[in-house]
Amino acid sequence: MNSTANERTVDEHDVDPVAAALSLLLDAHRDDTSGALADYIPELATVDPDGFGIALTSVHGRTAHAGDARTPFTIQSVSKPFVYALAACELGIDEVARHVGFEPSGEPFNAISLDAATGRPANPLINAGAIVTSALVGGGDAEERFDRVRAFLSACAGRDLDVDEAVYASEDATGDRNRALAHLARSAGVLRQPVDDATEVYFRQCSLVVTTEDLSVMAATLANGGVNPVTEATVMSERVATVTLAIMTTCGMYDHSGAWMARVGLPAKSGVGGGIVAVNPSQFGIGVYSPRLDEYGNSIRGSDVLQSLSERFELHVFDHPDRPRSPIVRADDHTGEHGDELTLVVRGELDLISAEEVVAFLREWAATRTAGTIHVDASGVSRVREVARRLLTATIERLRATGFAVTIDGTV
Amino acid sequence: MNSTANERTVDEHDVDPVAAALSLLLDAHRDDTSGALADYIPELATVDPDGFGIALTSVHGRTAHAGDARTPFTIQSVSKPFVYALAACELGIDEVARHVGFEPSGEPFNAISLDAATGRPANPLINAGAIVTSALVGGGDAEERFDRVRAFLSACAGRDLDVDEAVYASEDATGDRNRALAHLARSAGVLRQPVDDATEVYFRQCSLVVTTEDLSVMAATLANGGVNPVTEATVMSERVATVTLAIMTTCGMYDHSGAWMARVGLPAKSGVGGGIVAVNPSQFGIGVYSPRLDEYGNSIRGSDVLQSLSERFELHVFDHPDRPRSPIVRADDHTGEHGDELTLVVRGELDLISAEEVVAFLREWAATRTAGTIHVDASGVSRVREVARRLLTATIERLRATGFAVTIDGTV
Amino acid sequence: MNSTANERTVDEHDVDPVAAALSLLLDAHRDDTSGALADYIPELATVDPDGFGIALTSVHGRTAHAGDARTPFTIQSVSKPFVYALAACELGIDEVARHVGFEPSGEPFNAISLDAATGRPANPLINAGAIVTSALVGGGDAEERFDRVRAFLSACAGRDLDVDEAVYASEDATGDRNRALAHLARSAGVLRQPVDDATEVYFRQCSLVVTTEDLSVMAATLANGGVNPVTEATVMSERVATVTLAIMTTCGMYDHSGAWMARVGLPAKSGVGGGIVAVNPSQFGIGVYSPRLDEYGNSIRGSDVLQSLSERFELHVFDHPDRPRSPIVRADDHTGEHGDELTLVVRGELDLISAEEVVAFLREWAATRTAGTIHVDASGVSRVREVARRLLTATIERLRATGFAVTIDGTV
Amino acid sequence: MNSTANERTVDEHDVDPVAAALSLLLDAHRDDTSGALADYIPELATVDPDGFGIALTSVHGRTAHAGDARTPFTIQSVSKPFVYALAACELGIDEVARHVGFEPSGEPFNAISLDAATGRPANPLINAGAIVTSALVGGGDAEERFDRVRAFLSACAGRDLDVDEAVYASEDATGDRNRALAHLARSAGVLRQPVDDATEVYFRQCSLVVTTEDLSVMAATLANGGVNPVTEATVMSERVATVTLAIMTTCGMYDHSGAWMARVGLPAKSGVGGGIVAVNPSQFGIGVYSPRLDEYGNSIRGSDVLQSLSERFELHVFDHPDRPRSPIVRADDHTGEHGDELTLVVRGELDLISAEEVVAFLREWAATRTAGTIHVDASGVSRVREVARRLLTATIERLRATGFAVTIDGTV
Repeated sequence: MNSTANERTVDEHDVDPVAAALSLLLDAHRDDTSGALADYIPELATVDPDGFGIALTSVHGRTAHAGDARTPFTIQSVSKPFVYALAACELGIDEVARHVGFEPSGEPFNAISLDAATGRPANPLINAGAIVTSALVGGGDAEERFDRVRAFLSACAGRDLDVDEAVYASEDATGDRNRALAHLARSAGVLRQPVDDATEVYFRQCSLVVTTEDLSVMAATLANGGVNPVTEATVMSERVATVTLAIMTTCGMYDHSGAWMARVGLPAKSGVGGGIVAVNPSQFGIGVYSPRLDEYGNSIRGSDVLQSLSERFELHVFDHPDRPRSPIVRADDHTGEHGDELTLVVRGELDLISAEEVVAFLREWAATRTAGTIHVDASGVSRVREVARRLLTATIERLRATGFAVTIDGTV
Repeated sequence: MNSTANERTVDEHDVDPVAAALSLLLDAHRDDTSGALADYIPELATVDPDGFGIALTSVHGRTAHAGDARTPFTIQSVSKPFVYALAACELGIDEVARHVGFEPSGEPFNAISLDAATGRPANPLINAGAIVTSALVGGGDAEERFDRVRAFLSACAGRDLDVDEAVYASEDATGDRNRALAHLARSAGVLRQPVDDATEVYFRQCSLVVTTEDLSVMAATLANGGVNPVTEATVMSERVATVTLAIMTTCGMYDHSGAWMARVGLPAKSGVGGGIVAVNPSQFGIGVYSPRLDEYGNSIRGSDVLQSLSERFELHVFDHPDRPRSPIVRADDHTGEHGDELTLVVRGELDLISAEEVVAFLREWAATRTAGTIHVDASGVSRVREVARRLLTATIERLRATGFAVTIDGTV
Repeated sequence: MNSTANERTVDEHDVDPVAAALSLLLDAHRDDTSGALADYIPELATVDPDGFGIALTSVHGRTAHAGDARTPFTIQSVSKPFVYALAACELGIDEVARHVGFEPSGEPFNAISLDAATGRPANPLINAGAIVTSALVGGGDAEERFDRVRAFLSACAGRDLDVDEAVYASEDATGDRNRALAHLARSAGVLRQPVDDATEVYFRQCSLVVTTEDLSVMAATLANGGVNPVTEATVMSERVATVTLAIMTTCGMYDHSGAWMARVGLPAKSGVGGGIVAVNPSQFGIGVYSPRLDEYGNSIRGSDVLQSLSERFELHVFDHPDRPRSPIVRADDHTGEHGDELTLVVRGELDLISAEEVVAFLREWAATRTAGTIHVDASGVSRVREVARRLLTATIERLRATGFAVTIDGTV
Repeated sequence: MNSTANERTVDEHDVDPVAAALSLLLDAHRDDTSGALADYIPELATVDPDGFGIALTSVHGRTAHAGDARTPFTIQSVSKPFVYALAACELGIDEVARHVGFEPSGEPFNAISLDAATGRPANPLINAGAIVTSALVGGGDAEERFDRVRAFLSACAGRDLDVDEAVYASEDATGDRNRALAHLARSAGVLRQPVDDATEVYFRQCSLVVTTEDLSVMAATLANGGVNPVTEATVMSERVATVTLAIMTTCGMYDHSGAWMARVGLPAKSGVGGGIVAVNPSQFGIGVYSPRLDEYGNSIRGSDVLQSLSERFELHVFDHPDRPRSPIVRADDHTGEHGDELTLVVRGELDLISAEEVVAFLREWAATRTAGTIHVDASGVSRVREVARRLLTATIERLRATGFAVTIDGTV
């Protein structure tokens, strides 16, 4: 463990209660030494097994962390959703879907899982699918393709990431299974690059060095609709971020994804380097690190900390039992010289459900009247979804057609 | 098609823009006559193949609908997530998990999919898992058990549901495959009831008659944290509603669940009767109905309407790219006779991310001062999550310890 | 162990060296107490675990035995090839093949293994296939069908076999998995009888009581082309016996059939009652008995004794490295007053290879001559295959056409 | 079709009825033009699709043939059982079994079929198993290893075989799937050679050029216990020949092996070049050739001709319904001056069943006497199996001990 980091962190905790809460979580799991370092890549077996860190980056761009959050390690499979996002940005979601599917394989990470009919790997988060996806990234040769991959992941992390050459050499030397997957994909016609090129880029991508803080920023970029909340750079489209999160939801934890979604409820992706990213969409991204793995190749303490975090902090993505806040800030209703008047102050983002609230209110008010004046103050509205615009427009037109005067402040 | 229903609906659309939007969606898909009625249960092949309806119920309890939204049909597999919820309420999530898993099976709905080691069906939404789950519901005999199932689904729908006896008889007469699954589950030790009892309850549960409106209310009950938003009855715990949605996310659309989550992004469950429920958590529930099925047993027009709805109305559950609204309504900052003073007005639900906003604001304000007075007006706070309470309490204590006077209005 | 049987056997060994050899084989394996009694049928767990017997019946109808060769036990899956033979006799091989396949399932005995496309069980020696096969046997009801099964197996054994009612009741009470297989087969349309009827016959068939001697006679009936060599009754056609042996070759030892064929080389079938039958076609049948089973459900000592027997006695069906005996007993060749004369004495069964020998001899003799007299003495020929008749006829006609006089003694 | 070859053949048929019979068989299937040339190796798609030949070589070393029996084509997968035999000769059957199993895979020829636990390919006749087996052959490098493979297959064929370099280049260029299998096997630790070395040898082995006559001689070498019946060279041990035939029996025709064994009953192996070998152990080997393949990669007319041949000529290996010939040629029984005398003339190969005949005869004769003289004339015995020797010796010792005088002529 990095004692310098810990001392510093303790100081910060004195004044940062989020970091303090994360630190307590680490403490609760620190003594668990079960599991083992990944050994199928010899170089991975040389890291300090006790490393343990966590970081949380909100969509407001603030990061809290605890433990060895600045210890470097290789990203491994945590790179997969981000490389999927890169390919989807370059080629479009539909074109990528012609080469790799969306379905959980129900099998381990290194499973073959090529569709019997189409030859497509089951999804981009198993090795076969990740190799195919990585090979879809544009570029004249392997070097150029990898440069793009590195640039994209660096943009997600908000700093330049480098390759651990010793790990890369080790992956390359022991990569028979991944080469097999590449040959199978090529034989099925879904891998367009030569096998050696494809595996070189893939092995390099897995050997990129990150810290737990990097992972939290990368995760927050997905949480924030593709905009890195620290650098404020737009790294990918909202649509690609959404679909990437969807794939992490159903396929991110291999053949344990269903239970993970039920118990933890945060789209996530683990790597055999010991890192895990988890995302609460539109809220925050989390990185955790602990290199001892369970039989499925997931970080044991990392998974457990995320489950505790989700349970104690009620972070399950579907755990929003309160009614959404009404968009109606204030409704002033009085009878003036020109008859009944209504002033409706609305705010925030207008989507289907909030527009429906406004529409229902207006229709109810109008239902008991034959005429009147309505003023909608929408100056506090932050964004209007297309569906909301259409609902409101239709309602207002209907009101006008039936004898009401309607004015609007602000764009709807 | 039921022309009376349609005429009525058109009238309503005149004044209900949500229903009008739904009606337009139906129109866009009405001409698609591909697919076929389910025929493995002979009675299902007798329904009007052209039936087509949709309904949307918000967590505020309002329902909009279009098309044949009041045409009765049998619920079939749409019953499965609700019976899972009932079993989870009675026995707890962990005890149910001892009998049935959480993982997608990667196989068709009637697949065998019993875990080789434990004999557990893969998840509660395939037939094997649904039969096992249904048999976990308490009761002295099959009749009593079914009474509980019917009562629970009726509470979700907000009205008493009845069995279509002709469909039940047809299911019972052609139920060899389901009886096989029950025998397998019993032989594996995960089915505790006699096979005939278990299948009787299961066949009856599948034969319950619902309308598309019923489905939208049932879905809205899941969206609303287990509280039926129409009747306001608490039908299940928030936790059970959350886990039920998680299972629908990974397993709801059989071996198509990953693509469904990527493209539509709404936890859903289909039935061979032609119905589908879909949920946007904490927002609304949807029911759709069209009895012509694709090769996987999913309603073709129903699936397509949901995909169009999600795309046009931007309803993907992970599609919230805007930053969440700040909980800080107003911050008044002035220097008075007693030094610097800050009045912070916060509102809404305080969870991890909104508490972190408040904490960050307070810490930044205090960082440049050695003393001062802070007044937090939390009277507009609707609910405080435990994690938020802890973060705020720790921060306020720290501020007081370092020389600030802090007062709070309202409970935090 | 049955000491009376042993004493008697020892006496016989004094003068029966085959039995003595079998006895030595038992001794070599007697001390192996590994494995366990079948316990999924409770009644099977009540037998003496030390029972150990062997019997060998030649196609000449003589039986040698050693150990507990007269201890009764239930036949279990050893019944399957014989019930297949009965169905094939009644319906024909092709009609049975429409309901059940010929391929090894690569899976355990109780695997589901229904073909995805046709619903046919993989082969008649797994449970699913055996249930379907048993239900193909004719008869008005379950009782009548079972009477035929019992009569057929009794004819193979050469004595009336009876049901162990306690084992039958135990099978019936714990038969969930087999009922599941029957329901699946029925749902796939390959099982024509009601499930309860089918499983009743199947459970009764498995509960028939046999001794090791019975098994050796049953096996010898298959070895002897369908004729019981003891009673000399024709129980099945040669063709059915041949195909039954072929199925035992590829499917008889479940997912161990390939290694069994490589190492032991005798078509065989085991049962969880502890019995195994093995066959050396046209030579002999063997029965062995020892109720402790390995993880695959095969008798451990039974399998080992058969492997030792095959190795020591060189019994592998493909282990006939000597050239087959020539059919030419004598060839007298002299020059008489009418020119060159040849007398050729042939004997035994004339098949393709032996007819080819005769033809080659005749053609070589004639090749250096332009005329001559040939006398074929075929009075010692036991049987002439059609192909041999055609080859000889064509050759003789050709010889006559080119100037030779040919006479034949005996039918060719 | 090669008309010259046909004319020649017709001439021969005039005097060779076996070839004439084969020719008639070809005629019966000649018009079937269903199926297609293998196209996944482009070079294979360039052959004459109408080529059609058959050859039969007996263990006496005579070959009859018909059709295009001397047309060259590449051996492809027909090489696999012979390379297995080579590896088994070099390393022993048990050591090879540590790297590749004996079980049918129930899957197509290019299936992955590596055992989940051990990584062993299912059997040596699927591609994965053949690559692993080929890599077990000794030699310092790929060239040396291939020289051994070519020498061994040439010894089986009785002439030097050469590589079709164009086919080799085509296999090498399109070998992604086989390279994948090799990488998988290497990653599982069962492939010891570098992938490129292993696939080079494998692709060369598959590209060896043979004729149908060659195949029949190679098959006859297996039939003849490992001795090439034409050259009389001992190519492999009897044991290896036996085990090779056993593997062909259970795995030779891929996932059609069970039906093949039931219907045709001749151990066989097909190749996508259009060739098939089939063996009737201790009788003859057959080669057939027709390059149009079915969906499983088997020659359509080749398979059909073999089935017709087996049915019409009654060649099923288990189809020996006649009792085996008695080894007892003559028994002279008279009472002389020294009491009862028996002269027993025995001949042929004495194995378990024939020795049992002799022993039974002797015991029966002695049973009614208290003394006598027995003379066994074994001068016509061609070979005595160890088990027979032991049975006879024990019997004779027993007779002598109980007062009989026994003399033997010839070795027993």
